[in-house]
Amino acid sequence: MTEILLHGALGHMGRAVEEMAAEDEAVKIVCGVDAMAASDEQERFPLAFSLSDVNIKADVIVDFSTAAATDELLSYCLEKKLPCVLCTTGLSEEQLERVEEASKQIAILRSANMSLGINLICSLLSEISPLLTSEGFDVEILEKHHARKLDAPSGTALAMAEAVNSSLEKPYDMVMDRSERRQTRPKAEIGISSIRGGTIVGEHDVIFAGEDEIITLSHTASSRRVFARGAIAAAKFLAGKAPGMYSMRDLFS
Amino acid sequence: MTEILLHGALGHMGRAVEEMAAEDEAVKIVCGVDAMAASDEQERFPLAFSLSDVNIKADVIVDFSTAAATDELLSYCLEKKLPCVLCTTGLSEEQLERVEEASKQIAILRSANMSLGINLICSLLSEISPLLTSEGFDVEILEKHHARKLDAPSGTALAMAEAVNSSLEKPYDMVMDRSERRQTRPKAEIGISSIRGGTIVGEHDVIFAGEDEIITLSHTASSRRVFARGAIAAAKFLAGKAPGMYSMRDLFS
Amino acid sequence: MTEILLHGALGHMGRAVEEMAAEDEAVKIVCGVDAMAASDEQERFPLAFSLSDVNIKADVIVDFSTAAATDELLSYCLEKKLPCVLCTTGLSEEQLERVEEASKQIAILRSANMSLGINLICSLLSEISPLLTSEGFDVEILEKHHARKLDAPSGTALAMAEAVNSSLEKPYDMVMDRSERRQTRPKAEIGISSIRGGTIVGEHDVIFAGEDEIITLSHTASSRRVFARGAIAAAKFLAGKAPGMYSMRDLFS
Amino acid sequence: MTEILLHGALGHMGRAVEEMAAEDEAVKIVCGVDAMAASDEQERFPLAFSLSDVNIKADVIVDFSTAAATDELLSYCLEKKLPCVLCTTGLSEEQLERVEEASKQIAILRSANMSLGINLICSLLSEISPLLTSEGFDVEILEKHHARKLDAPSGTALAMAEAVNSSLEKPYDMVMDRSERRQTRPKAEIGISSIRGGTIVGEHDVIFAGEDEIITLSHTASSRRVFARGAIAAAKFLAGKAPGMYSMRDLFS
Repeated sequence: MTEILLHGALGHMGRAVEEMAAEDEAVKIVCGVDAMAASDEQERFPLAFSLSDVNIKADVIVDFSTAAATDELLSYCLEKKLPCVLCTTGLSEEQLERVEEASKQIAILRSANMSLGINLICSLLSEISPLLTSEGFDVEILEKHHARKLDAPSGTALAMAEAVNSSLEKPYDMVMDRSERRQTRPKAEIGISSIRGGTIVGEHDVIFAGEDEIITLSHTASSRRVFARGAIAAAKFLAGKAPGMYSMRDLFS
Repeated sequence: MTEILLHGALGHMGRAVEEMAAEDEAVKIVCGVDAMAASDEQERFPLAFSLSDVNIKADVIVDFSTAAATDELLSYCLEKKLPCVLCTTGLSEEQLERVEEASKQIAILRSANMSLGINLICSLLSEISPLLTSEGFDVEILEKHHARKLDAPSGTALAMAEAVNSSLEKPYDMVMDRSERRQTRPKAEIGISSIRGGTIVGEHDVIFAGEDEIITLSHTASSRRVFARGAIAAAKFLAGKAPGMYSMRDLFS
Repeated sequence: MTEILLHGALGHMGRAVEEMAAEDEAVKIVCGVDAMAASDEQERFPLAFSLSDVNIKADVIVDFSTAAATDELLSYCLEKKLPCVLCTTGLSEEQLERVEEASKQIAILRSANMSLGINLICSLLSEISPLLTSEGFDVEILEKHHARKLDAPSGTALAMAEAVNSSLEKPYDMVMDRSERRQTRPKAEIGISSIRGGTIVGEHDVIFAGEDEIITLSHTASSRRVFARGAIAAAKFLAGKAPGMYSMRDLFS
Repeated sequence: MTEILLHGALGHMGRAVEEMAAEDEAVKIVCGVDAMAASDEQERFPLAFSLSDVNIKADVIVDFSTAAATDELLSYCLEKKLPCVLCTTGLSEEQLERVEEASKQIAILRSANMSLGINLICSLLSEISPLLTSEGFDVEILEKHHARKLDAPSGTALAMAEAVNSSLEKPYDMVMDRSERRQTRPKAEIGISSIRGGTIVGEHDVIFAGEDEIITLSHTASSRRVFARGAIAAAKFLAGKAPGMYSMRDLFS
């Protein structure tokens, strides 16, 4: 049984982690921390306003809070020698350095996307891209998201392109628009196309198009619960690990 | 039996029409015309160097030649009162006016894309877009073609967007790139995404993404023979028709 | 503003209708009826235990109850001259006859599937199948649902096959398994394939595969809320209509 | 430069190998063998009626002939110590044993499907199936082929299911028809669905459907030339290799 301290327990993702953890007998949330915690709130676990109030033993901390809370989080983890699954995004350069520094003393797992499936696909992309590009396959990425999403391409599409590129000797250019040029497709590019509409949660296709054959690796998410599930899998993995920087992809290797 | 005079008989598409016609007992190519015709060539049908040399009776002419040959073609059709399936693209404004003028005396069928399937889908798009957009569905078009294609989006994708727009009270904007902005998706736009890679002959998806449901109309072509087949279907349809401008979509209505 | 009497208000689908109606300013649920109604329950609308207790004026009734309650429902609608959107499935032959009989005095809309998108696709299938089959296209249906679904193929896949068949002069055979035979595909059949896995809500593809081209009509549902939304659209449509049997497909014609 | 002796040079696949080899500067077909060879035929390479007539040095033999010719083929390869890419299917049990026996003295590569892409996907399937099934993902395979194909499911779909199964501790059942039962989906099964229609060359999807997410690995072939290309890649790989049994999957590891 992995005992989890949940940081950012009352946010959208914290709630999802709570829900998923309740369905999984191998984990238990022993304490939640959230700056929004009110004294009279009743949760399935003890709830604290701040990490400084927490004195409960845990195996690992799962963090879905905000960048502003990361410094206090790291101090706490270092003090308690607590492995940390760090799911908060938008950290500054200085914070990322502090994370790196902390990982010399504790185990830290950080990933741009917590979905098991997305990370598995990124892992496969690194594996197959050198062979397929050398055999002349062109690489294209297609992502689809709901109409309210502000950015394009998605961070996950960019992470996939990066997974391809980091496996190649010379990285390919990323191209988001071909309507302004008139030319045959250069080999050394990754086209990234973004569909926006309705309530699509998230779909990603990585397409390797070659001579007379196409290989496609696809991921479809139908709920944000996949990220909560991934965070719990990461927590189980990280508990008891030696100090160092880990990522979701370490779960498969 | 529809008797066809094939104009542009020795080009890529002319050859495909010849091949398809040989498999169809309801049509016969009674004569081919091509400026590349050599005197000693042996074809399945009599071959002339120029329309002015042709004295064979036919029911309809199928044209896959070049814009430069269109003027002579129209004169010939007007003189012989011959219906004309006009598949040549790239006509000038003046030529298009002459085509329009000629259609007062003879039947002319002209379409940006001769595939039966593509035209059927365009017809369905005009039919369903008013309802679906009024119910809040977003419209997106995705097209995939081989790496050697010079232009993006494809002419067919633009024709599909036009089929949607011509059915709406107020046309939507076409958007080919979302990476340069940061905003939720405006309702009144049609996103058009272009994938390029390998030897993909041609795929088009029109996606209507609504609240919790998605409707997609897709077309996949695996050979240019579909255009030849469409031209032959058009020839059968046009033979004997009254003067006027026709399009592939008239085959379904 | 269409005023709705919601029959079966506390069931899974009744709750979804309530939720959707709250987001739509053009409709109002003026009363709910449910045999599970408890006296102390607080809803957004007055709640009755039985139709016989209801004296509130409404424009239309939406029914998501059970076959057992259909007889009382029909009596009530006839007495009040109330149009009825009948979404309950599993009616007996006798009940269906009574529905038919009642439709001589009141407007009744009944459909196997209340999704707007599914019904639109069925409508398109009836329209295009005669042309495409006569042009030699083969018809295949593919559906995907979650692992807990008991039946295969889905009722919706069968309704789609029926939409194709009812448009043909001679209906095609439905084939669910090809592994036991060794032969080329007969023209006059509709293959129906069923994928089962995970938590897929519902996907349906109708594939027309011809010579060198494929046309596909697809529907994806990501939540059962699409059925509630369709029921509300049907209620708006049916309010004020003359007596008769209607279906979801009348919303498009 | 890899020098290839092409056995079965005038068959459908032999011709495709010839065509592909002409486009590849790293290989050369030094001799063709075919029982259909006529004395006056002019090819791009010397052509023999039988292997016993061949005295040209080569690095490797590529065989696309028939099972009837396999015994003579093996004798020749053993005599000349020639590595052999064996693409002929339908070998008897005795022949397979003789192949096995021969591989103690020469390098032999044999695969059910010569496509690079299909074999790459099979390799990935073996890699990811243990993890995904242990995380609760259901496995489904969907294949699409042309209307003239006699068998269902395709041999490639079965090979993919086998790639999944061989990686699991306990193999899953393969299920081709769910219409005759009424039950939730058992975990330990692989559903295999077969679509047949038109001129589809070959499509295969392996679908891992989990809680709220789906991972799909897809392969599309648009021409049989992919098998010729794979055979040439295999020939380059096998030339100079030590005795033993190899498969296409050895090209990636």
